[in-house]
Parts: sequence; C-alpha cells; structure tokens
Amino acid sequence: MKRTILAALAALAAISAAAQWGPRSRVLTDTIHSRALGADRPFTVYLPAGFDTDTARTYPVLYLLHGMYGNNTSWQHDMHLAEVMDQYIASGEAVPMVVVTPHAGGADPEAEQNGYFNMPDWPYEDFFFTEFMPSIERRFRCGGAKGLRAVAGLSMGGGGATSYAQRHPDTFAAAYAMSALMDIPDERAVPAATADGKVARLTRSVRELSCVRHVAEADEARRHALRGVQWFVDCGDDDFLLDRNIEFVQAMHRAGIPVQFRVRDGGHTPEYWRTALYTCLPFVSRNFDRTDR
Amino acid sequence: MKRTILAALAALAAISAAAQWGPRSRVLTDTIHSRALGADRPFTVYLPAGFDTDTARTYPVLYLLHGMYGNNTSWQHDMHLAEVMDQYIASGEAVPMVVVTPHAGGADPEAEQNGYFNMPDWPYEDFFFTEFMPSIERRFRCGGAKGLRAVAGLSMGGGGATSYAQRHPDTFAAAYAMSALMDIPDERAVPAATADGKVARLTRSVRELSCVRHVAEADEARRHALRGVQWFVDCGDDDFLLDRNIEFVQAMHRAGIPVQFRVRDGGHTPEYWRTALYTCLPFVSRNFDRTDR
Amino acid sequence: MKRTILAALAALAAISAAAQWGPRSRVLTDTIHSRALGADRPFTVYLPAGFDTDTARTYPVLYLLHGMYGNNTSWQHDMHLAEVMDQYIASGEAVPMVVVTPHAGGADPEAEQNGYFNMPDWPYEDFFFTEFMPSIERRFRCGGAKGLRAVAGLSMGGGGATSYAQRHPDTFAAAYAMSALMDIPDERAVPAATADGKVARLTRSVRELSCVRHVAEADEARRHALRGVQWFVDCGDDDFLLDRNIEFVQAMHRAGIPVQFRVRDGGHTPEYWRTALYTCLPFVSRNFDRTDR
Amino acid sequence: MKRTILAALAALAAISAAAQWGPRSRVLTDTIHSRALGADRPFTVYLPAGFDTDTARTYPVLYLLHGMYGNNTSWQHDMHLAEVMDQYIASGEAVPMVVVTPHAGGADPEAEQNGYFNMPDWPYEDFFFTEFMPSIERRFRCGGAKGLRAVAGLSMGGGGATSYAQRHPDTFAAAYAMSALMDIPDERAVPAATADGKVARLTRSVRELSCVRHVAEADEARRHALRGVQWFVDCGDDDFLLDRNIEFVQAMHRAGIPVQFRVRDGGHTPEYWRTALYTCLPFVSRNFDRTDR
Repeated sequence: MKRTILAALAALAAISAAAQWGPRSRVLTDTIHSRALGADRPFTVYLPAGFDTDTARTYPVLYLLHGMYGNNTSWQHDMHLAEVMDQYIASGEAVPMVVVTPHAGGADPEAEQNGYFNMPDWPYEDFFFTEFMPSIERRFRCGGAKGLRAVAGLSMGGGGATSYAQRHPDTFAAAYAMSALMDIPDERAVPAATADGKVARLTRSVRELSCVRHVAEADEARRHALRGVQWFVDCGDDDFLLDRNIEFVQAMHRAGIPVQFRVRDGGHTPEYWRTALYTCLPFVSRNFDRTDR
Repeated sequence: MKRTILAALAALAAISAAAQWGPRSRVLTDTIHSRALGADRPFTVYLPAGFDTDTARTYPVLYLLHGMYGNNTSWQHDMHLAEVMDQYIASGEAVPMVVVTPHAGGADPEAEQNGYFNMPDWPYEDFFFTEFMPSIERRFRCGGAKGLRAVAGLSMGGGGATSYAQRHPDTFAAAYAMSALMDIPDERAVPAATADGKVARLTRSVRELSCVRHVAEADEARRHALRGVQWFVDCGDDDFLLDRNIEFVQAMHRAGIPVQFRVRDGGHTPEYWRTALYTCLPFVSRNFDRTDR
Repeated sequence: MKRTILAALAALAAISAAAQWGPRSRVLTDTIHSRALGADRPFTVYLPAGFDTDTARTYPVLYLLHGMYGNNTSWQHDMHLAEVMDQYIASGEAVPMVVVTPHAGGADPEAEQNGYFNMPDWPYEDFFFTEFMPSIERRFRCGGAKGLRAVAGLSMGGGGATSYAQRHPDTFAAAYAMSALMDIPDERAVPAATADGKVARLTRSVRELSCVRHVAEADEARRHALRGVQWFVDCGDDDFLLDRNIEFVQAMHRAGIPVQFRVRDGGHTPEYWRTALYTCLPFVSRNFDRTDR
Repeated sequence: MKRTILAALAALAAISAAAQWGPRSRVLTDTIHSRALGADRPFTVYLPAGFDTDTARTYPVLYLLHGMYGNNTSWQHDMHLAEVMDQYIASGEAVPMVVVTPHAGGADPEAEQNGYFNMPDWPYEDFFFTEFMPSIERRFRCGGAKGLRAVAGLSMGGGGATSYAQRHPDTFAAAYAMSALMDIPDERAVPAATADGKVARLTRSVRELSCVRHVAEADEARRHALRGVQWFVDCGDDDFLLDRNIEFVQAMHRAGIPVQFRVRDGGHTPEYWRTALYTCLPFVSRNFDRTDR
C-alpha cells in the first residue's frame, strides 16, 4: 500500500494544515532586548507563506495585542491565529501580512506588570514605539508606513490598540477593538492614589488614558486626526465591558468620527475573540495599502 | 480596593467562561470497561449547566466523533466544544444537551486501532451500540429514544457518524457529517486482501461500509428508512475529501432522500470543524424532541 | 425538444420559487371588519406548504408588524417574506408557521392613522387583541396559546411588537424587535398637549407606552412576568434609533431580564430588515412549542 | 413641532436610504445604440456616492448579468442592488465602484432573444465587447484595464460571466458565478440541429461555449491564462444546476486553476442571488486595483 487516502490523512495530521495550499507560513517566537524596560521581551510573529522566498516584498503588519493574563503566544495557542490566517490568505479574505503578537503581561498581574501604557517602572509604550516596532519592521520587512500598519487587541489589549491608534493616528491605518477595556469609570475600582501594587498602577493608567474621554474631550484638530484612522468596535452582548464600548461608540458618533460597531452573541471569552478574527482580518486587509501590485 | 473591574477580569480568567451565565456546565472524562473490546475505553462528556440540579430531566444527547489520530478529548482541546456549547445554550442557538465524545483512535494508527466499525480484533461498533450508548444514557440521563439522539463527527468520524445513522436509522434523529471520509474508492488505496496491519483493516472497513454505496444501492425500503433521519453534509472547498462528499450528496439526491449540503471556505483543518459547530449544534437542536416543556 | 434545462428555467420563472421543494406555500390578502375601528382592515397572511392538506394541524403564528408608511403587504413586497419562509422551512431553519402581517398604517401619516396603540378615534390595540387575533387564529388554525405565538416588527412595528409583548407577556412566547422605535424621549419631538394631528397622537402614544420606561419602572412582579418572554433586539450600527435600543437593552440588564442583543452593519433600511429575517425566523421557531410530533 | 423623530422617520421614507450616509449614489437607466445588433439596447448603471463630485477619479466596474427572463433592471428591482451597494460601500465591505447591468434578454424567450453569446442574428458578444464596454467605461469613468473590471451574473448570466472571463482573461480581474448555467449536457435538451427558434439557438450557444469543456479541454497555455483571473462559484444545495457547477469546479481542480467554491442553503431563487451579493461584492472589491490612493 503506497500512497493512500489514509496516508494522506496521516500526512495531514503530521504537518501544518497550511501545507494544503502550497508554501507554508511560519510562526516564530523570539525575544528583543529593551533598554527602556531593562529586560528581554518575548514576542511571536506570524510570517505568511512566501515570506522567505519573496524577499523583495514589504508586507503590511498587524499588531495584535493580548489581554490581561495573556502573553505573546495567546493568540496562537488560544485563538489559533495561524490557522485562520492561512485559511483567510488562501481564500483571499485576508491579504498576506505579518502579524505580531507582543508580550505585555503575564499570568499573575500582581507579580508581573501588565499593560500597554507607560507606568512607573514600566515604560511599555516607549518600548513599543521606539524599540519594538522599528526592530520588528526592519527584521521582518513589514510596515514602515501608516498605510501598512494596523493594530487590534482583546480586552486590555483592545483598549491598548484603541489608545495607541488614538494617540498615534499617523502611525496606524486601522484599529480593531475586541471586548475592549475602553475605560474604568467606576469609582469603586479606583485604587488610592498612594496604592503602589501593579494592578493599582494598571488601573490608574487605563483611567488616565480613557479611550472614551480621549474622544469626548477632543477638539476639532484631534477629531480631524482621528478621522484618519479606520475604527472598528466589536463587543459581545453578554460582555461585562459592553457599556464601556457603547460609551466609546456614542462619543465617536457625537464627535462625527466614523466607526464600525458590532454587537455579536457572546461574552468575554476566547470563543468571541476567535470569531472576531473573521471580521478583523478582512477589515484590516481592506484598509492596508496594497504591496502586491 | 474591593470589587473592581480588574478584579472582575481576574475572576473571569480564573473561572470558566461559562460562569458568566449562571450555573456552570461540566466536562468530565472517565472510562468504561468494554467486554467486547476487552479493555477500558476512555470517554469525555459535556454536561450542560443545570444538569446536576435539574435531576428529573432527561436530556438529548449528541455523539460527536473524532477523526483519525484523535481521541476523546480532541473536541474539547482542539475545537473548544464546551465554550461553544455554553455560548450556544446561553443564547438559545442550541438546546441544553449532553455531548459525548468517545475514544476510537489514537495518535499512531499502526500501533493503536482506529475506527468506528467492527474489524478483526476490534468489534468497536458492537461496543458502541451494546455497551457504550446504554451505559452513557443511563448514567447521564440522556437519550433513550431516537428523538433524543444525534450523531456527528469529523473526517473518519464523519464517515462513522453517517454510517452509524445509515445502518441504525431508528436510533438517531439526525446526523451531521464534517469533512467526512464517506468512502475510499481509489483502488491504489486498497491494501492487499491479506494485509494485516491496523491501517489495512481500517481501510477495508471504510470501503466495505461505504456511505456512498449504502445509498446508491438502497432499495425503496432502505430509502424510506433513511428518510427518517435528518442529514447534513458540510465539507470545505479545499478539502481533499470533497469529491467523496459530493458523491454522497448526489447519491442521496438520486435516491430522493433530503440532505442539507454546504461547502464552506476551508480545508481538512481544525478551523473548519470549529466553525462547523456553529451549524451543527443548531441543526441537531432543532431536530431533537423537546424535553423542557 | 420536450423537457429541457431551459424549459426548466422557464418553468421556474413562471411559478413560485417555493415549488422547487414540493407542495407550495400561499400568500393571501383579505380584510377583516373591525367594530372597534368601524372599518374593514386589510391583512396578509403566509400559509406554509402543507397547510391546506394537513388540516388537523395547528400551526404556530408570527405576527410581523410593518413600520410607519408601511402596510400589510410591505413584508411581502419589500422584504420578500414568502421567499425567505419557503427556504427556511425547506432547510429546517424555521418551523412551518403562519405569518400574519396586519395593516396599521398608510403612506401619509397625516391623512391615515399610523400606529399599534390605542389613541383617540383609533382603538387599534383593542382591535388587534380582541378582534384580529382571535379571528386570524380561528380561521387559519394557528396560535391559540402563548407557546404558539410570537410577535416581531420593524421600526414603529418593532416598538409595537415589544410593547405588545411587554403588556401581554402571557400571550407571546417571544418578541423580536428590529430597528425599533422603543421611545421618543426628545422633548423637541413632543407635540403640544393640545395638538390634534395624527402624527401628534402617534408621538404621544409612543411616549406614553415607552418600552424603555416599561422596564425601567418595573417592580419585581412585572420583571418576573417579562422573564417569561424570550426577547431579541436587533439594530443597525448606523440606525438613528440605535441609542433608544441601547437604552432598552441596558434597562433590561438592570432589571435582570435576559435579552439577546445584536448590532449589525446597516441603517434604518429595508436591507436591514431583510437580513433580520435570517435571525428572527430561527429565533421564534426555537421558542415555539412543537406541533409536529 | 419642528424636527422630531417621527419627522426623521418621514424624511427617511421620503428619500433614498443611501442618504443616511451622506452624498448619495445614483441609479440611471439609458440606452445605447448598437450597430452590431441594429437596435437600441437598454442598460442600468449604479454610480456610487461621490461619483459626480470626484470627477478626476476612475472607478472599478462590475458587469452584473441577469438571468433568462430578466433584463437590465432585475438586479435593482428584484435584488435591491443599490441598497446593498450603499451599505457595503458605507461600511467598507465593498469599494466604491460602478455596477453596470446590461440587457440581454426579455420576458418571453421565444419572442425576444436571450443570451450573452453570438448567435445567428444576435451578435451580442460582439456588441458587449466592442460597443457596450467601451462606451460605458468612457461615459462613466470606469474600468479601462483588467485590474479595474470584474464580471458576475446569475443563472444564464452566471454562465455568461464565466464564459466571458474564460475567453477574455486579460479583460477581467475576477469572475463570480451564481447558480450558473455552466453547460447543458443533457442530450434530451438538445434541439434538432435545424431547429430555429430563439430558445434552440440559445441552447446551442450554451452547449458550444460550455464553461466546463472550456476548462476540461484546456492546454497548458489556456490554463495559465485562466489562472490570471480570480474565480468564485456559488450555487445553492437545492439548485437544479448544482451538478453542472460541481463539474465546473472539478474541472478547475483537475486543471490546477484556483477557484473559490461555496454551496449555501437555497435553490434557484432571487433570495439566493440577494445573499450572493454579500459574498460577491467583497470578493470583486478585494480583487480590484485600488484607485483611491
């Protein structure tokens, strides 16, 4: 018995599913040394099929941010990013792109700092924009211009993605927020000004950089800049953060800034984020400049 | 800092996502001793929220079969069955049901027997219908009648599900085949009649119980019986088994047996089976008798 | 040239699409004389395939309400109800049901009274519950019990459907609101108390029977009753009524009354209501008692 | 009572739904005189919002072909093309494009010639490529290059779209076939060679230009050319033309020409074609060259 259907099944099981469609994509995990943070920071990157052979091509890049308790591998392990990417690129729903998942957290938020913003002893945003992005885009032939960059994320990373695009509207073509932590308005959630734990710092940073207030308080210059980014807000109808996302969308409406808004079935769950990819990837794809023609 | 949004995030991470919607579902793994197989066989079962308190209720049951190289935990680990079930029951897309994932395989098909059919030294089908099902339905207050049973599966398990329902049409109300191994018609795939390895036996069993031939050769009595089951065939446009599924559907059409048929984007991949659940679970739900009223 | 594919195309064009799946559904328009309104009121009704032959069967019934400027034929002419029904029943997405589209409006709201509520000289709600429903359910062998009745509607009819189910929770198993006029809170929209035009009356009735306030002001007895209905709110992200629908959903959340909520792409348009049927029909179907077994 | 919600409802009803999103699209019907056909041929064209003001811009163009018994207004009247276009452009699912719906048929196929191919006394394909397309693209600032043209159609028009792109692969970037008449293989459907009615001529033309044979008989040069077009085949599981579409897809697979294939729920019905737009418009959009940057 030489080549059989069952052998084909065996082969399929042994290799990545991507192999069905020819050249294979790769997922690579590495670290980058940050002077700002004084530490090595891990990251994981998805490189589309053809990346290694089509060496003259510059790819668009999606920065895809994890939530609290997550890390650089969460989008791969829990949301099966590479599988969805492979399928969506194969069928044209997504353009070939580099997807970068940084590490801005850890499983124990009192022991490890979580968060995408600058905080005392955690200048993460400085690291992200001045060290991480330039290094990634150089090494992986991606981004390099607003038209080739998007940012997305879930929960804490959805707030991070939104805030990054709000305060760097010339950097990103599009931002997609999933179940996003847009703000923490509840006074009961506010730690004492003197509280010094990592969660207290994180809470303060989310409040200070409230995505809702950033829009609500925008003057016309800021509004104009914000209109230069394509926005998408996606939140489950059972998500405990739904009201914050509604406030954000309503603030955008009042400010006259176009935003796509979807409320789908679900809660604050990995299943919601898996299915959010089906909308997110085509959305960022159509908002990238083309590099293939 | 007492109850905060971040604490809520923490709580969410610590507990099952199901917890958002009240009482929690359970996933339980155990073994059952089979006299037929002369061994303990593992299985995993999803019990819907309320199962433990609503003790007078009998639930419908879905037998959900894994593919080659899979086992009783594949649907949980790779396809996140419990998460999807929790969400779909919460929103009403699926009715509360027990989902049973048996073990009919193993990672090395030459070392461990794979397959849902009776073969020499592997009377799996006998085990399934005379030992496994009765035991499960007694222990977990489910099934007990055709109107409360459905069967579904992926790849080898899609063929298994189809064949089980074909040859036991009075046992199942509905059958849902994903990327199903409906037959192995290719002569090159046929092991010599004397070949004795486990894969050779499996190949022969799939050919002997060809789902396509079972319909194509059906007389009117068999056709009539087959019309008593609700059928659904779901296969990716890049799946190497697509043509077999097409043959099955065409045979069903010629025999005048209604069948739902969908070809969606994708290949022979876990991502396809994850998304198949979104169609499969409502399908079996609406074909169950109701036990809630 | 006898029976050809082109002849088949011809036949298809000549007859209703429903014919492909065997016995045909019917759409019938008639009037009913209302003593309350002192006039003949038109209505249109969809009768599923088999209705005329399966004469012992009682069907579930969906009351499907049009919006301002619409009439009893809008759901058929603009949203192609019969086509969607035929397809969804054929594939099992919807159960066979009678769908009734009453007439509560007209193209010129200053000339013809619009609205589902009792107003001076327009006791429409009395007509609906004491004359229309009983007559329809007797004549078309449908409804007759809460478990066999649902109500849905678009815009003004979405508010009507919601309010009917709110104030008659023992009458309907489920309510589905599309782009619903849940309230008119804007003070500028309030006509002077003495204003006497038809639009002034309609505006006052919508405010008085505010769907939002009905929940917000509910005591526990009312909340309990409201939990006995299955609720679904579906509104476009570009709909000018989105904020009212959000208020309704938030009030339901605060009152602890489960509600499904979806925000999809779109505005206050027929296209939104066409696609809402794809969600609405399975939703009401799964909330009906079964009459087929 | 000045500006009220009810007045807003009134305004909405009075104007096109497109108006909600700013500048309005237009639908225009006109005729073009054909020397080839010796007659004026009607056509209808959708012009996206901004077309009249952004006069320096060249738009991509989709030629969208009706089926037998249809005409240039069918896509507007029966499938609500303009509404879907407006919504999809507003949300970014489709790029702004010109959509042209020609007239190649009529309600009585024995009285009026139907079809997209050259036949005796009906050199429609000559008209289409040498008169119609150039005139349309000049007048409406669209197309002008392969990267800015796509073709799609339903039933007879799905076969027309496929065959046009097969034999003019340098003209179209993408082709989308809905419920397509890919061939008429049934001998019983073949009119006698001498039959001279309009349906006989049409039948012969469809057989002679069989989309299936065009692929099956392709040498490597033709296959190479066909790989330069993006193909999509979409056909209902209850469509009587499904087997023809399957043959086409299987021929494409054997020839190594990538093709997207979907089988969704439904028959040969307007509802299928309405929902096909949701897939077709993003598909052609992502395969157009960009003209906006």
